[in-house]
Amino acid sequence: MKKQIAVILGDGIGPEVTQQSIKILDAIAKQYNHEFTYEYCLMGADAIDKTGSPLPDETLTTCLASDAILFGAIGHPKYDNDPTAKVRPEQGLLKLRKSLQLFANIRPVNTYTSLQHLSPLKAKNLEGVDFIIYRELTGGIYFGKKETSADGQSATDDCTYSIPEIERIAHLAFQHAQKRRKKLTLVDKANVLETSRLWRKVVQDLSSQYADVAVDYMFVDNAAMQIIVNPKQFDVVLTENMFGDIISDEASVISGSLGLLPSASVGSSVALFEPIHGSYPQAAGKDIANPIGSILSAAMLLDHFGLTVEADLVRSGVEWTLQHGFVSKDIDPINCYSTSAIGDLIRDFT
Amino acid sequence: MKKQIAVILGDGIGPEVTQQSIKILDAIAKQYNHEFTYEYCLMGADAIDKTGSPLPDETLTTCLASDAILFGAIGHPKYDNDPTAKVRPEQGLLKLRKSLQLFANIRPVNTYTSLQHLSPLKAKNLEGVDFIIYRELTGGIYFGKKETSADGQSATDDCTYSIPEIERIAHLAFQHAQKRRKKLTLVDKANVLETSRLWRKVVQDLSSQYADVAVDYMFVDNAAMQIIVNPKQFDVVLTENMFGDIISDEASVISGSLGLLPSASVGSSVALFEPIHGSYPQAAGKDIANPIGSILSAAMLLDHFGLTVEADLVRSGVEWTLQHGFVSKDIDPINCYSTSAIGDLIRDFT
Ligand SMILES: CC(C)[C@H](C(=O)O)[C@@H](O)C(=O)O
Ligand SMILES: CC(C)[C@H](C(=O)O)[C@@H](O)C(=O)O
Repeated sequence: MKKQIAVILGDGIGPEVTQQSIKILDAIAKQYNHEFTYEYCLMGADAIDKTGSPLPDETLTTCLASDAILFGAIGHPKYDNDPTAKVRPEQGLLKLRKSLQLFANIRPVNTYTSLQHLSPLKAKNLEGVDFIIYRELTGGIYFGKKETSADGQSATDDCTYSIPEIERIAHLAFQHAQKRRKKLTLVDKANVLETSRLWRKVVQDLSSQYADVAVDYMFVDNAAMQIIVNPKQFDVVLTENMFGDIISDEASVISGSLGLLPSASVGSSVALFEPIHGSYPQAAGKDIANPIGSILSAAMLLDHFGLTVEADLVRSGVEWTLQHGFVSKDIDPINCYSTSAIGDLIRDFT
Repeated sequence: MKKQIAVILGDGIGPEVTQQSIKILDAIAKQYNHEFTYEYCLMGADAIDKTGSPLPDETLTTCLASDAILFGAIGHPKYDNDPTAKVRPEQGLLKLRKSLQLFANIRPVNTYTSLQHLSPLKAKNLEGVDFIIYRELTGGIYFGKKETSADGQSATDDCTYSIPEIERIAHLAFQHAQKRRKKLTLVDKANVLETSRLWRKVVQDLSSQYADVAVDYMFVDNAAMQIIVNPKQFDVVLTENMFGDIISDEASVISGSLGLLPSASVGSSVALFEPIHGSYPQAAGKDIANPIGSILSAAMLLDHFGLTVEADLVRSGVEWTLQHGFVSKDIDPINCYSTSAIGDLIRDFT
């Protein structure tokens, strides 16, 4: 198989974790006779520093011409505490999502027995946790009109959703539920928001097409509790952009390390794969970051190419390192291995 | 002291838990020579059933003429799954908050040693947890323009904040931080939202007036993780309405029982006190609900009247029941006491 992968190293620890994934993808390609080529592109603070723009046109063109995108991380503290900054790294990612119509962000949440001691949750709350979050990624308050009044005295963000926007991700979530435990939970705030009531109506209407899937509805405030109190009740969780941002990060703590979790963003054309951790600038350049989130994202990328044997091999490699204690500093501050050493071990395993 | 308290029993378990608080307030009044009179008013599903309106004008008038409001709970499932319902119980509460300008919802988060086994979090994550959330309650997306397009194909919710709206609650939060551990954390999404950038700017500007308070800023997705991973880092948390709804409910799981937690909503005139749990209709009328959230809300009401000795006595009564295992079914399903029995015990203690 011949594939072109757009690589966006991005900010902070993005480059060093993504390099490990590429190392492993190369080993997989060699062993299974695939040809993966990489096109490096700029985005985020890195792109601002080099070109003035958080998403240069070239990046968009390259991504569109590629079969998939592997992305590291975005963001830099120098922009965060300047509410008046006109150009911000995150604009690059948001524009990329919108331009490529990456409307569904998919995040699996599960636990590793060998890492239970790292979870803030008690062992009994972790048993049997295995769910997946479908977060809408190109609509809602993220992309609504943003305004500051002329006198600077007030600001507005608009949250809008249309039926087709809800339907397209709901179909994906229902279909995924059919292949899993056949349960879909819509998370919304239908007792307050008009957009949430539209979500609830659309999902109710679609549910007759997926009669084998049991649907339930949960207010987001309750969901924020249930994710911690009883996470095993969930199978597929569907939600809008802002709620998805919050609850998927919340859910990520269950596993015990944010550094382990991958995600895929899919839509009408090319898909993007990225670890869910951020740019973590304090660790950048130190070869201490956890590369597993990125490596499991690369496994999702292989799945996306239909290469499930290869993807499973990468996942086995990851589990093997975790079981044998070949882990990074976030997991074991004393007996720890470097980012690149873990990458090497998984490459050698595959 | 002579005080009039407006009592809104509300829906579900609202009436039975609130009755316990009144029993205790009466005992306190007798012992300390106060005169508390109660004016009962309707709100929520109960009010819709009886009057057609979720907030009859009379309720508003009575509340405005009272010294404080004691409120039970709101909501009924028959409205939740009907996205087309025109009248909903929650409209009553939202209108009350807005009409009385109850712009700050204050929720303490702490833990009880005797209940640590109930928390989903490991004991080491619970140690030293003691923070307080200031949630803005009369602005943002809750009260923005809500629209469904003429063709029914899309819906919009508007989120707006003005500088004065942010300032008034920020002052309260800063002042509270000064009396505590002198740390304020603003939770926002300033990397995406215009309103969040206004929040960040206003808090940055005000911080020079509170030089003894250390301020930090946290994105809401990160906050949703930190509340579970490292809750003891927080002292006073300040946030807007929707984020506050989510993270305060999330934070409530730390204590091990939602049924224990009180809240106060304050503003320009009369203040409102309510447990944070909802109407919990499955338990309604069974005398099994936990009355502690309401009773501790009554203690906050006493504090608000300046009656701190009395308030502390109520809190001691609560701790005494918890320590001696006089707890409701949510806390111990086997050796449990009824709602009214717990109310009696705390009344007799005070
Ligand atoms: C960086 C930021 C804009 C982004 C988001 O909020 O969507 C991130 O938190 C994420 O979840 O991918
Ligand atoms: C009942 C509902 C409208 C309300 C809210 O979202 O504010 C509740 O969840 C709360 O937190 O008081």
